[in-house]
Amino acid sequence: MEPTSYLRCFILLFSSLFLIILLRSWFPSHGADFHLDCSQYSSWCTTSKNRIQSKFNVSSSTTEKNTTKHKPIDDHFADTPKHPLDPLTLQEINKVQSILTIYPPFFTPNFPSIHTLSLHEPEKSTVLEWKKGDILPHRQAQVIAFLNSHSHVLVVDLDEDKVISHGIDPASGYPMISGEETTIATDVAQANEEFRRIVVSRGVKLSDLVCYALATGWYGPNEEGKRVTKVQCYSKQGTSNFFMRPIEGLTVTVDLEKKEVVKISHTGNDIPVAQAKNTEYQHSAQNKLTSNMIPINPISMEQPLGPSFSIDGHLVRWANWEFHLNPDPRAGVIISQAKVRDPETGKLRSVMYRGFASELFVPYMDPSEGWYFKTYMDAGEYGMGLTAMSLVPLNDCPHNAHYMDGIFSASDGKPFVQSNMICVFERYAGEIGWRHSQTADSSSGRPEIRESRPKVSLVVRTASTVGNYDYIIDWEFQADGLIRVQVGLSGMLMVKGTHYENANQIPEGDNMSGPFVSEHLIGVVHDHFITFHLDMDIDAPDNSFIKVHLVKEEPPPGESPRRSYLKTKKHVAKSEKDAQIKFKLFDPSEFHVINPSKKSKIGNPSGYKIVPAGNAASLLNQNDPPQQRGAFTNNQIWVTPYNRSEQWAGGLLVYQGKGEDTLAIWSERDRLIENKDIVVWYTLGFHHIPCQEDFPIMPTVSSSFALKPANFFNSNPILHVAPTVPNDLPTCSVASTSS
Amino acid sequence: MEPTSYLRCFILLFSSLFLIILLRSWFPSHGADFHLDCSQYSSWCTTSKNRIQSKFNVSSSTTEKNTTKHKPIDDHFADTPKHPLDPLTLQEINKVQSILTIYPPFFTPNFPSIHTLSLHEPEKSTVLEWKKGDILPHRQAQVIAFLNSHSHVLVVDLDEDKVISHGIDPASGYPMISGEETTIATDVAQANEEFRRIVVSRGVKLSDLVCYALATGWYGPNEEGKRVTKVQCYSKQGTSNFFMRPIEGLTVTVDLEKKEVVKISHTGNDIPVAQAKNTEYQHSAQNKLTSNMIPINPISMEQPLGPSFSIDGHLVRWANWEFHLNPDPRAGVIISQAKVRDPETGKLRSVMYRGFASELFVPYMDPSEGWYFKTYMDAGEYGMGLTAMSLVPLNDCPHNAHYMDGIFSASDGKPFVQSNMICVFERYAGEIGWRHSQTADSSSGRPEIRESRPKVSLVVRTASTVGNYDYIIDWEFQADGLIRVQVGLSGMLMVKGTHYENANQIPEGDNMSGPFVSEHLIGVVHDHFITFHLDMDIDAPDNSFIKVHLVKEEPPPGESPRRSYLKTKKHVAKSEKDAQIKFKLFDPSEFHVINPSKKSKIGNPSGYKIVPAGNAASLLNQNDPPQQRGAFTNNQIWVTPYNRSEQWAGGLLVYQGKGEDTLAIWSERDRLIENKDIVVWYTLGFHHIPCQEDFPIMPTVSSSFALKPANFFNSNPILHVAPTVPNDLPTCSVASTSS
Repeated sequence: MEPTSYLRCFILLFSSLFLIILLRSWFPSHGADFHLDCSQYSSWCTTSKNRIQSKFNVSSSTTEKNTTKHKPIDDHFADTPKHPLDPLTLQEINKVQSILTIYPPFFTPNFPSIHTLSLHEPEKSTVLEWKKGDILPHRQAQVIAFLNSHSHVLVVDLDEDKVISHGIDPASGYPMISGEETTIATDVAQANEEFRRIVVSRGVKLSDLVCYALATGWYGPNEEGKRVTKVQCYSKQGTSNFFMRPIEGLTVTVDLEKKEVVKISHTGNDIPVAQAKNTEYQHSAQNKLTSNMIPINPISMEQPLGPSFSIDGHLVRWANWEFHLNPDPRAGVIISQAKVRDPETGKLRSVMYRGFASELFVPYMDPSEGWYFKTYMDAGEYGMGLTAMSLVPLNDCPHNAHYMDGIFSASDGKPFVQSNMICVFERYAGEIGWRHSQTADSSSGRPEIRESRPKVSLVVRTASTVGNYDYIIDWEFQADGLIRVQVGLSGMLMVKGTHYENANQIPEGDNMSGPFVSEHLIGVVHDHFITFHLDMDIDAPDNSFIKVHLVKEEPPPGESPRRSYLKTKKHVAKSEKDAQIKFKLFDPSEFHVINPSKKSKIGNPSGYKIVPAGNAASLLNQNDPPQQRGAFTNNQIWVTPYNRSEQWAGGLLVYQGKGEDTLAIWSERDRLIENKDIVVWYTLGFHHIPCQEDFPIMPTVSSSFALKPANFFNSNPILHVAPTVPNDLPTCSVASTSS
Repeated sequence: MEPTSYLRCFILLFSSLFLIILLRSWFPSHGADFHLDCSQYSSWCTTSKNRIQSKFNVSSSTTEKNTTKHKPIDDHFADTPKHPLDPLTLQEINKVQSILTIYPPFFTPNFPSIHTLSLHEPEKSTVLEWKKGDILPHRQAQVIAFLNSHSHVLVVDLDEDKVISHGIDPASGYPMISGEETTIATDVAQANEEFRRIVVSRGVKLSDLVCYALATGWYGPNEEGKRVTKVQCYSKQGTSNFFMRPIEGLTVTVDLEKKEVVKISHTGNDIPVAQAKNTEYQHSAQNKLTSNMIPINPISMEQPLGPSFSIDGHLVRWANWEFHLNPDPRAGVIISQAKVRDPETGKLRSVMYRGFASELFVPYMDPSEGWYFKTYMDAGEYGMGLTAMSLVPLNDCPHNAHYMDGIFSASDGKPFVQSNMICVFERYAGEIGWRHSQTADSSSGRPEIRESRPKVSLVVRTASTVGNYDYIIDWEFQADGLIRVQVGLSGMLMVKGTHYENANQIPEGDNMSGPFVSEHLIGVVHDHFITFHLDMDIDAPDNSFIKVHLVKEEPPPGESPRRSYLKTKKHVAKSEKDAQIKFKLFDPSEFHVINPSKKSKIGNPSGYKIVPAGNAASLLNQNDPPQQRGAFTNNQIWVTPYNRSEQWAGGLLVYQGKGEDTLAIWSERDRLIENKDIVVWYTLGFHHIPCQEDFPIMPTVSSSFALKPANFFNSNPILHVAPTVPNDLPTCSVASTSS
């Protein structure tokens, strides 16, 4: 550029800035700065209508107490960050957008599309040093944008009003697909004459089409170099559950940048579109069948004195727990600085610096043309927060739930409100915290004892709808110090059309990719893996990972009537490869994170253990492209030293990425992890072989794992909890309106 | 015997019978026929005091509705059986006792001790043919008695008023230990001078002793030929939690027949009795610490219209479920004839003929003198029903629970009431039955959808306290057809005394048998295995067991960009050895029970699958005596053809048994199981490596497995359930007495 060009640019920049400031002062807030109806920008950004559904008033004396006060959208204009980890506010997102608008590299005819715009977390040491009342560290945003075939990763400093770092194409992949792009892709497909002809030839009216833009994965050099998506469509004729009516074998590959069709693949000519009958799941649209079930009377969790948790901004306090709760466009929810109060000292003690669903991997088991690419990475390709729509009160979350909004950015960088995307509630499920009984024994003077304590916990929930599937992710905090992470799967199967109508037509050995679930439909076998980032800080950042191996020993002959017994052998993992763990039922271990510098009263190191429940492992070939990208599922547990940039197990840019930036690659460096600030990664897996009951919508299937104190407390921390007595019960009656 | 002897015997018999009948008419019921305060007969039989604790009245408007009517003890005199599987009534037990009293082989100076006296179930075919209104099949009792060194197994027919079968010593073991025997054993030990001298030398006052009679297992010929128990003792000085104050290394072997000490072993001279401090768990006895926890406000499950289940005798009806519920002295609870109503046809369909905890195996991992024998079989040695004491309302079970009593027999054959040993309640835990969300899309006219259904289930619970340990066993029935079996572990650790006070005193490589959990206490590592008998009858008795194996396939080169995918391969198990299943995370399968003769609308066979969650396997040597006795844990799943006599996985007579009558032995016969009446056996295992938090009482640890419909219904059976709406909520206020 010539000097005059620089000058012209400078003048343009300044005059624009002036104009923007002027405009902002004229139009103080609404309309221009955020999306009231954002569906034109993002198919999953939430419209204001959602809020109405969750705002009903219950004509009950307890409602005022139990329904937490929730701010209307307009109030988000007044949100201010109070904590270094608070998410970007609506005003801060606007400010980032303004900064980017006048950022020279983006000062082109085409403003980049913004795919992520969220808090760039301060250095961990800065956060750990910060105390309430201190000035906040610089507020920064991480922005992932796409412009002219390049991915841009920026950090914008809101205190300095500028971009402070800018990387271009740091890895092979692209940013996650935006709602705007899915609209472009489906519009491009539906405008294509050949596509329209095929649709009509399959007996589907164009006005009945519903299309989805699917992430393509990565399958070698042939598919590299352009940002593409694959569009597949359904018929909504006669049902809102179009997912059960696929136009099988019709796939349109669309170039998202050029906005043009790359390829139309049609292999499903002989496959009928399955019927609409029996697929409706909306209560309002269902034919009311005569129910053969004894009606289940309403049942509710009631709290006569109100909930016992409090939420101050994003800081949650309940029982002995305190933690920070962030809605996040990619992870859904981030739990930070989870601390538990020691019942003996009254002091808050650190358990986990940060925990979140880092990535999901969902490979479908069908190598055919229309299916091979279905190997989704839901967090990095779609965003678990962006797809976490408003929760349905009384059904998704109980009566006493508090709802929290997320403030995210649309593709134009402007904020929108993802309303009621998190709920927080206390749970009493009729479970027992601890118990013991004893009969009286007159000879020893042993008295009769009946002691039992009900278990009450606090649940943080999101439900992300990624296309057909719904992921319910719960973080449950127990008063005994245990954190349980539970993942529930519901929503619709991704079904495949078939010409078979009855199993008796299927020849022996037919190569179907899943069970036959309804007339003309197969439920394709698939896996779900959810990899959690668990930055454990047991009493301080520096921790060690211990494998407590259970091994069989044989006593020397003659020494015992026993011929075998189990013994624990502790192994401190020295480096990353030492902590790549595959679970073995017949060669079991416990997995502890301990603080070697913090000893209990009796001298044991303070610790937590990772407690698996049901799980499933990926069995795909290591050289299969999907498994290379999903290589973070190669082990059930990994441990890495803390690294601010290692947040996303599948890499920062996952869409069409080759997998060169995954947890598996990081861990290969085999860094030292003993007595270091370490991060544990846990993968929760499901094999899903569908069945008829999953049609037309799946009853929730859940699995979980837990983080459980192990020599963290000197003794049972809920030993002194009082039992529930009759006076604790509320006095309840049927709601007057229904009586 | 000479003919005159026969005559004398006959006369004696008749005159006795006459006297008994006369006495019975004089004293119509009470006192003579059952144990009001049974603790003199059975340390775990429930005294009438227990009932008071569970009978409080809640001064709340909903109490009358929600508190199910419960019969006082006296009303059990009027109990009459209504169903072939109803447990023996109080009057029936009395009648059996009367029949045995005049049964010639027992007509000796010593009436045998009665160890089991419970319903001998009718032939399965008889039960299946029986319909309401039909006359009941003959009522029969199975009696296991011990007399003059011999085990007697009898069947008494109550309609024919006689013993109809009588086996003596059918296998090596003995009947379960009775409460009376434990009293004898501890009395014998405590009367022994040497024992008393040792106790005093250990610093424990004789008046502070609490002793337990422990099952000895079997360890070869040296220990055969006499019925023995091992007595170990604790100090209750300063605490009701004497389990935390063991007199380590002192074991008294007592001959239960001769009522004499066989051996005193004392190896713990240098080991102090741990302190009482911080061990108390009774709320009334605890020093009230200043709690550092934010108090948890009371929370209750409320049902404004009352519970939606009904219990008619022992028949439970809820939502689409109907099943029979039996308290059982050995199994705790037996679920029979579980049937679910098909939403399409309204017809009840059979799922499971019978399900119960058949045996438990709890090996401790310490081969030393005082510990090697601790390899308990809790069902067959102690009885999961006999040890299931009264549940604590509001703490063990929620507000809306219904309680059920068991009627069992004491060692003299007379009945006692195990009151409130089962609770049944509806659960709403804030879980989601199914859900799906959808954003509006104006281009396709796709409407916004937010559909979700809360999950409500029915729970049947018992809590068995076998000495120190508490087992909470839940059978949970979901409206979507799923049955979840959950086992929770609480109560006290079985701790071992040590001279160490702090971990820093423990030399490297010290051979401790478990982690150091408190001053002078080790929590010995141990396993718990609970083996369930699941007689599945999917739509009819004849079923097949299918292994649905997930195998990796590689598509031919060039055929797909994918290099691997998973495929299901079905294998129908032909015989028992074909269905001995060890779980493998990296070689996974699903396990289905199907009815090959019953096809769904689309032609799939009707089925249920067994869904494991967390589990643990036994790693002991196959030739280790405990593992020979606990060989039923060698696999996670076994399938056997139905055999009326194969009920107890460890054998009928387990106490000191050698393991020649276990599931593992039965299964070796490799009988055919395809399209037969089959029984599935599932073992749920736990490795328990204790930690400080387990001291002085353990927070509950749970695991579970499920039986889940898989092509049993034509589609999701809860598709048409209505959502919860605000009018369903109760109007609640704080109880007036506490405001």
